[in-house]
Amino acid sequence: MAERPRDRELMARAIQLAARGLYTTGCNPRVGCLLAHGDRIVGEGWHVRPGEGHAEVNALRQAGGQAQGATAYVTLEPCSHFGRTPPCADALVAAGVGRVVAAMGDPNPQVAGGGLQRLRAAGIEVVCGVLEAEARALNPGFIKRMQQGLPWVRLKLAMSMDGRTAMASGESQWITGPAARADVQRLRARSDAVISGADSVLLDDSALTVRAAELGLPEVEARAAAATQPLRVLVDGRLRVPPDRKLFREPGPVLVVYSDRGQRGPDYQAGDAELLALPGDAGHVDLQALLGELAGRGCNEVLVESGAALGGAFWQAGLVDELVIYMAPRLLGSRARPLLQLPFDSMAEAEDLQITDMRAVGNDWRITARRVC
Amino acid sequence: MAERPRDRELMARAIQLAARGLYTTGCNPRVGCLLAHGDRIVGEGWHVRPGEGHAEVNALRQAGGQAQGATAYVTLEPCSHFGRTPPCADALVAAGVGRVVAAMGDPNPQVAGGGLQRLRAAGIEVVCGVLEAEARALNPGFIKRMQQGLPWVRLKLAMSMDGRTAMASGESQWITGPAARADVQRLRARSDAVISGADSVLLDDSALTVRAAELGLPEVEARAAAATQPLRVLVDGRLRVPPDRKLFREPGPVLVVYSDRGQRGPDYQAGDAELLALPGDAGHVDLQALLGELAGRGCNEVLVESGAALGGAFWQAGLVDELVIYMAPRLLGSRARPLLQLPFDSMAEAEDLQITDMRAVGNDWRITARRVC
Repeated sequence: MAERPRDRELMARAIQLAARGLYTTGCNPRVGCLLAHGDRIVGEGWHVRPGEGHAEVNALRQAGGQAQGATAYVTLEPCSHFGRTPPCADALVAAGVGRVVAAMGDPNPQVAGGGLQRLRAAGIEVVCGVLEAEARALNPGFIKRMQQGLPWVRLKLAMSMDGRTAMASGESQWITGPAARADVQRLRARSDAVISGADSVLLDDSALTVRAAELGLPEVEARAAAATQPLRVLVDGRLRVPPDRKLFREPGPVLVVYSDRGQRGPDYQAGDAELLALPGDAGHVDLQALLGELAGRGCNEVLVESGAALGGAFWQAGLVDELVIYMAPRLLGSRARPLLQLPFDSMAEAEDLQITDMRAVGNDWRITARRVC
Repeated sequence: MAERPRDRELMARAIQLAARGLYTTGCNPRVGCLLAHGDRIVGEGWHVRPGEGHAEVNALRQAGGQAQGATAYVTLEPCSHFGRTPPCADALVAAGVGRVVAAMGDPNPQVAGGGLQRLRAAGIEVVCGVLEAEARALNPGFIKRMQQGLPWVRLKLAMSMDGRTAMASGESQWITGPAARADVQRLRARSDAVISGADSVLLDDSALTVRAAELGLPEVEARAAAATQPLRVLVDGRLRVPPDRKLFREPGPVLVVYSDRGQRGPDYQAGDAELLALPGDAGHVDLQALLGELAGRGCNEVLVESGAALGGAFWQAGLVDELVIYMAPRLLGSRARPLLQLPFDSMAEAEDLQITDMRAVGNDWRITARRVC
């Protein structure tokens, strides 16, 4: 039941396969599967989109008879339940696989271990936990949703080197360069929902869509990534955004969340927009309830692209899992708008972060950080 | 007269030698010299401190008779004039050196080429410009002072990830961690003057001294670096800082610059402090005149460690050559103090920067940037 010398190398390849589903698996996890005899690979597969074959089934199809006696490398415990497709654990057993190496167990505590159990019961040797951290990084949203009923929330910000996101007037186009904007497009494309606020949409008239031509990906991949638009969520407590905005004119679903049930807002009938009242404290939208609602709709990863006020509200409510800051090599000056509205008065209130990644993106720098718990 | 295969390698070593003088050469340039027959090194030297031997003389002393017919690698054109020591060009000729490779010419336009000319006149083969950029980076201040009569100005700032340098109350200790603070100590140690403003000194009571124990250097090097304190300059237009402050109590020279000649200030007689009136516009100190004064006193590198107002004034006057920003992984919030007071209203006024270096320093990040001209 122990790890063997080649296991990590082959699992690394399975993780690469899983990552091909980054922009398309939607509510499902990104999963890769590789079948090998020793280091001779006989089948490779990954999950592409909901309703289509799971990674294991795709790999088994490629391997055909060669699956017999092979080792299967899977980035996630094979499922043991009937969903839109039959259980993958059964498919591996039926194909005569001799050994299964999984990177991680099923994150859903109610089904965890079931798939591996079924394999062991069929006499298959099972190893679990190979490159687990790398495999978990593929699916932060799926894992969090299964375990906490909430999506993984990324708060994206574009700032100058002096921490400003726009001039006092609201002028902000463009702080960052084209490479950073393409990177944001890819963040949108991997997200199931993009949240913005009324102020931003009124000011920038942004569509919040994924645009194939702006993704900076090979054409086929770009088209697949843009084929399904994330749910665009407008937090508009007082329903101030008129229906003629780009957000409502571009194709794809839009959810407008407001705070007062008694309110009468604009007529969004023309577009693909849905209205939802989620009243919170002090006339604001209940952001925690919004995230619960999105998780209920199968959203794994959510991207917040907003101004300092809504971003600050998400942060202060403790709802942000990851900050993604694009820092441009410019100074916007001391009158410009702050990064986040956070009304701290003493150093004791300052929030410590852990920087998990820092890299150049074109002429700008991308900083990824999490709250230190 | 051409470069030979080993020249760059040996010049790189000479540059390393020069860098040993980083904290001690004061008003003189950092210079290294290496004497070699082929790749066999027979002498190494560097300039340590004003009044002591130049790099060439130190290397010739080590080589003794072996200097005869050797190639001399020097990071700066050998001097041809009598200063506190006789001309190095003459010393190289007298020692019978066969070839001289210089990284760069003398930056002083009035003497440039004189040393190399003297060598050529003595029949010595001369090559100039090997690893010039690397050699120039050793002496940004000396070069600028020789060419423009102004020191190289570094503006050092410690900020949070949201671009804030202190809480609204002024509370700021400590935004960054011990590794970043040691790095600032090393910046002070390589500087000939450290400039701060009245607000900062009143608030933090900082001494602005170089402290051997805080440099994070080997003991011998640390003691040498702290042996000569930079000139500490207090910009205090209205002479508000009382003489009981740490700045005046720690040993080492202090220059207090104020704006109004008619003013009567505190009695700084007790300490080692000097008063200088440099009236500028609108009751402020004339910062350009201050830098000229410092250059006149032999200051090559000047470090500005101040609050947002004085830092912003230096920046807006176009007097900053390099920004050194220590960015801590924290959020101080939107009420906290800005990075620099820069009253810009539109994106057209935003200042573009070129990031020349970005690296982790302990738990913080250090960003080095210059204005895009």
